[in-house]
Order: sequence, then structure tokens, then C-alpha cells
Amino acid sequence: MMPAFRFQLQAVCAKTLARAGRFDTPHGPIDTPAFMPVGTQGTVKALLPADVRATGAQCVLANTYHLAQRPGAEIIARLGGLHRFTGWRGPMLTDSGGFQVFSLDELRTLDDDGVTFRSHLDGRELRLTPERALELQEQLGADIVMQLDECTPYPCSYATAATAVERTQRWAERSARAQQRTDQALFGIVQGGMFPDLRERSARGLASLDLPGYAIGGLSVGEPKEVTMAVLAETTPLLPLDRPRYLMGVGAPQDLVRAIGLGVDLFDCVLPTRLARNGAVFRRGGRLSLSRAELLTAEGPIDATCACPVCTTHSLGYLASLHREREPLAARLASIHNVSALVQLVQEARAAIINGTFADWQAERLRTLAAARSLVE
Amino acid sequence: MMPAFRFQLQAVCAKTLARAGRFDTPHGPIDTPAFMPVGTQGTVKALLPADVRATGAQCVLANTYHLAQRPGAEIIARLGGLHRFTGWRGPMLTDSGGFQVFSLDELRTLDDDGVTFRSHLDGRELRLTPERALELQEQLGADIVMQLDECTPYPCSYATAATAVERTQRWAERSARAQQRTDQALFGIVQGGMFPDLRERSARGLASLDLPGYAIGGLSVGEPKEVTMAVLAETTPLLPLDRPRYLMGVGAPQDLVRAIGLGVDLFDCVLPTRLARNGAVFRRGGRLSLSRAELLTAEGPIDATCACPVCTTHSLGYLASLHREREPLAARLASIHNVSALVQLVQEARAAIINGTFADWQAERLRTLAAARSLVE
Repeated sequence: MMPAFRFQLQAVCAKTLARAGRFDTPHGPIDTPAFMPVGTQGTVKALLPADVRATGAQCVLANTYHLAQRPGAEIIARLGGLHRFTGWRGPMLTDSGGFQVFSLDELRTLDDDGVTFRSHLDGRELRLTPERALELQEQLGADIVMQLDECTPYPCSYATAATAVERTQRWAERSARAQQRTDQALFGIVQGGMFPDLRERSARGLASLDLPGYAIGGLSVGEPKEVTMAVLAETTPLLPLDRPRYLMGVGAPQDLVRAIGLGVDLFDCVLPTRLARNGAVFRRGGRLSLSRAELLTAEGPIDATCACPVCTTHSLGYLASLHREREPLAARLASIHNVSALVQLVQEARAAIINGTFADWQAERLRTLAAARSLVE
Repeated sequence: MMPAFRFQLQAVCAKTLARAGRFDTPHGPIDTPAFMPVGTQGTVKALLPADVRATGAQCVLANTYHLAQRPGAEIIARLGGLHRFTGWRGPMLTDSGGFQVFSLDELRTLDDDGVTFRSHLDGRELRLTPERALELQEQLGADIVMQLDECTPYPCSYATAATAVERTQRWAERSARAQQRTDQALFGIVQGGMFPDLRERSARGLASLDLPGYAIGGLSVGEPKEVTMAVLAETTPLLPLDRPRYLMGVGAPQDLVRAIGLGVDLFDCVLPTRLARNGAVFRRGGRLSLSRAELLTAEGPIDATCACPVCTTHSLGYLASLHREREPLAARLASIHNVSALVQLVQEARAAIINGTFADWQAERLRTLAAARSLVE
């Protein structure tokens, strides 16, 4: 275990699997549970590093698939790596690029050694292997790097999921062997579809590699939420207690609250920024569309209980007006608020875990969120 | 003269008409010469108040025509006025809306009492009189408000220009009589086309009203630059020395440098932000398009002599990459830089006036800018 990536558990909940911890990286600590906003091209859409800092987020995720194509991992390396390129000085995480490649569907062919695909941008044929995915991520220079994995769709057969588990295990081993840099934490990714025994095989296999962290992949791919949570509940207990656990691509408030209770430490999702660009903002009382005409005269903030820089400065009327004018500031302000809202949510969970009140906090929050949802739907 | 709007001359150039001063407003001072970025809808496109502050700009301009239609001056008044609505705490200026109405051409009819026009948004018939323009601006609540004037096109006949001068004079008188608020400085606007005797008549007529400031309108409407400067040179000496002079709609670097030498104190222009949204940035060595492929690997800043937050943080390679991805941050960063570049230019002019070196500085700057232009064109 690299000393730069110490993971310290600070508190565990007595009634659930929730835990609070601190994950050190060369660019600073991440207090867990943590929500990480997604910066596809290295930058969280519409936000500058100072905006992201203002949300309270500590770690930013960037997509290797997109960056490797444009501007290219070599160019970013030449410009000093992702941190210098983007101006974000805190911890960063890059994915392997695999998830985007697997989404290409018709455009890719998979074998045991890797995956060949055509770029969605220019049709160029490209190849991703575990070694190449790691090489790209070493050029990009994030603090946390992800192994190339085979992410199975939902639904998928037992045989397909089993093959994906084997392949992902071998690719994790190859990734660990290929790693050159000692200042990056390599995370393995648990697969296994919705099959408990495959999830177990995958988790145990990866755990035997003693990696600095583990992700739970292949969830939130279209399955019902109850299935997501059931698989998660069976997977996290099989992962080492003293390593951070990262649930990929999950970010709806109620999912965060539930998954924290199942022992997840790290989350990422494009949801808050994507919703923001579509003019929707999070409130304790449910999502709100900025298009509603009556908001133009609303003097209060988006959410009076929110401590974010948007809610403490701007009226909902101003935001609604910017949104109607299609002014890019609307997306920016809504993005700052939405990311802040999720960061505050996980920080509340963290405080409750440390104070020993998580189970009550969770029950209360899930009730409020369920009421809000039924109002909206 | 309202005490809140004291204008103090701090230095005058011995060789040109340039002057350095300080114009106090209820929301703080404006050190002149000053460049004011344009916030059409109250907000400088793509920039938050903190971004605008980071450019060094002290005063922001907003367009009454646009704000009065959406969200409406009454709504802004109800939300606490422009300063609270936008979160910009420094001085603000609103135009009268006349310039936009006169640009509507086919959609408007003019009489001695005012102008009737159809909204470019929804075709509604609307009417603007000197009193109504002032009322709208009192609802908006900027520090500096502009009289409704008749802005003549280029070219235009002597008779048309003469009528516009008479009308603008009467409208200035009506505006002054209509004014209710004592915390807003009403500026008159000199018209007269390109005719020196009409410009003189207009300047003297308005000066007799003892207004807190004067604008030079009807320039930069398509005439050759040499004509603009010739008319300006004949107009500014006719305006009171102890009142700020505002040249409307001028912002190209070489025009700023020349007009400051002709005794102008205030400027506004959409140029820096519009260019930025189109991916062009100012450099001492000339404008640069962010689309150029070789910029993707450029490690240095846009302009190594620029002290703006973009040039001190980000590489040109990063900006070029954001621009290629059509990421809204590209427009934002380029806008911050471009506005900063003009603010720094007028601040340099100001320092040179105070140090007594303006004439040399001006000659040197005009040489550099001419060389840069010939390189670009």
C-alpha cells in the first residue's frame, strides 16, 4: 500500500454499514463519504476550479475516453498533466475509458486482450487494452486511476456476466503489473451483473490483489433501483474494510443516502450538472424547473436551507430570468448549486455517522425525499 | 450638482486633451478613463460579478430595452433593483433603450413626443418617451441613467441631423424635469451627425442644463474611423471640463487610445465579450483566434504581458482545447481576458496621464496596434 494513499476509517455506524473516513492523495485528502462531480474534458462543464471549490467538492473526475481523443493524453502530459492543464489543484480521478467504449455498442469488438472500437468523433479505429488504459491515465496524471473492466449491460446472461468477471480480474492483474507511476492509486472494479455469487467471486478475486481502492461497477445500467441496492448490499461486505469503495455513476439524492448506508465511500455522477444545464435544480422539497413562469418574481433563493454561494447571493427570480434568456450563467449557477446540494447531502451523512445519528438521519432523509418525489411525479 | 456624483479631475495632459479623474457614485468611484463592459440583461454575458471584478472593471452597463421587455423593469424593481438582481455591487449605468429602438428601423415610428415600436421578441406595440425611459431606468436603479435621444444613422442629411439635435435637446430637458430619484446621475447625449456646427449647437445646449455628465452619441454608427475622431476632436472641447464625458459604443483598442487623447473619460462596448464568444482574444501583438490548431500545444498564456486571472492561471493550450469542445468555459475565460485587456489598457493610459507621459505612451501604443493590425489583416 502506497503511503500517499492512506485510508483512515474515522467512524462506523452501529446500525448500518455506513462509515466515515479520510482518503489521502498526493493532491490532498478526500473526506468520505464524498461526492465527486464529473469533468468530462477535465473541466466540470460550465465551472472553473474556483466554482468547483466553492461547492465543497474535494475530488473531480475526468473521462479518459474523451480526453484521449481530444486534445489527446500526450498533449495534456506535455502541458504538465491534468492538474496543470485544468488549474484544479485538488484530488482527481480518471476512469479507464472502458465505460464509454462499451457504450459504443455496434462500434466495438471485444476479445480477451482488450477492445477495438471506432471513435464516435471521427470513426478512427482505436484499441484499448488494460496496459494502454493505464498508460493513458499515467499521461493524464490523476491521483486515482481505474483499471479497464468489462462492464456488462442489464439484463445480461449468467454466462456473459461470468466471462466479464474473469476478464475483469485478469485485466486488473495486468493493470497492476503495467503500472509505472507510484503516485497514482489504482482501483479495481467489481463486476458480476446482478448475480450474487459472481459479485462475490469478483470482489474476493480483486481483494486478493490488495489494491488501494475498489469500485463497484456494472450497476446503474438500467436495472430497477431495488436491484441496485440489493446487489450493493451483498457486495460491499465482501470488500476490505480498510479500502475506499467507489460506486460508479450514482448520484440521485435518494441513491446516495441509501448507498452510504450500505458502506459506499465515493460517488460520481453527471446528474447534478446535466440537470443544471437543462434548467432543473435540486431542492429539499424536490427538483424544480427554472422554466416555471411564476419563478420570475421569486425573491428568495432556490433553497432557503442551502448554504451554497448561489443560494446566499442570488434570487430564484434572477436565475429564472437568466434561464429564460438562455444566458450561459444560468447553467453555471445551477451547476454550482446542484453540485453543492449533493456535496452538502453527503457531508450531512458524514457528520451523522461521526455523531452516531446516521440511522435516524437516513430514515428522515429518505422520508423527505420520497415525499418530494411523489410531489414531483 | 448632486454631491454623490462628484467628478474630480486629477491630472490633465499638457500635450493632448487627455485627463484622469474620479467619478463618485452611490455604489463607489469610477477612476477615469474607464472601460465599462456591457451586461445586456444586467449580467455581462458568461460572467458572474466576481469574474467582472477580477477584470478590474468598476462599472457595468445594462440595456434598458432588453431588461424592460424581459424580465421587465417592474419585476427587477420588486426584486430589489439591478444591483440586488444581478449581485453586482459596484457602479452601474443603464442606457435609455433608444439606441435599440432606433436600430429596429422598419418597426418604429418617431414623433416629437417619443417613439413607437414593435418588440423584436413578440411584436407587441410599445412606446418610449423621455419620461418613460427615465421611469424605466428609475425602476432599474442604476447609478448613471441616460436621456432618451434621437440617434441619427450614417450617412444622414443636415436637416435630419438638425431635427435630431433639437429633439434630443428638448428630450433632455423633459428628462431632467421628469427625474424623481436623487441618487441617479442623468447624462445628456450630444448628437449632430458628422456636422461640426450641429455638434456645437447640441453640446452647448446640453451644457446649459448643467447635467452631471455628457455622452457623445451618434458616433461609431458606420462612419470611417477618421471621421469619428475628427467629430470627437471638435466635440469634447465644447463640453464642460468638470463633467465626465462618455463615448458610447466604442471599444476597439486603437479607438480607446485615440479617444482618451481627445478627452473622453468613459467607454462601453460589447466588442471584448462578443469577440470572446466567437473565440477571439486580444493580445498586444494583435487578435488571436482560438481555433488555430497549433494553439492546442501552446504552454504559455494568451499574452505574457497580461496580468489577468486567465493569463496567470491557464495555458493557451487549455483554452484552445475548451474552445474546440465548445465548452462554455472557453467563452467565459476569453471574456475575462478580453475585458481585462481593455481595462488594463485604459488603466495604463490613466497612469501615463498622471505621470505626465501620456503623449509618448499614446504614440507608442498606436504604433504597436497599427503593426499588429497590419499583421492580422
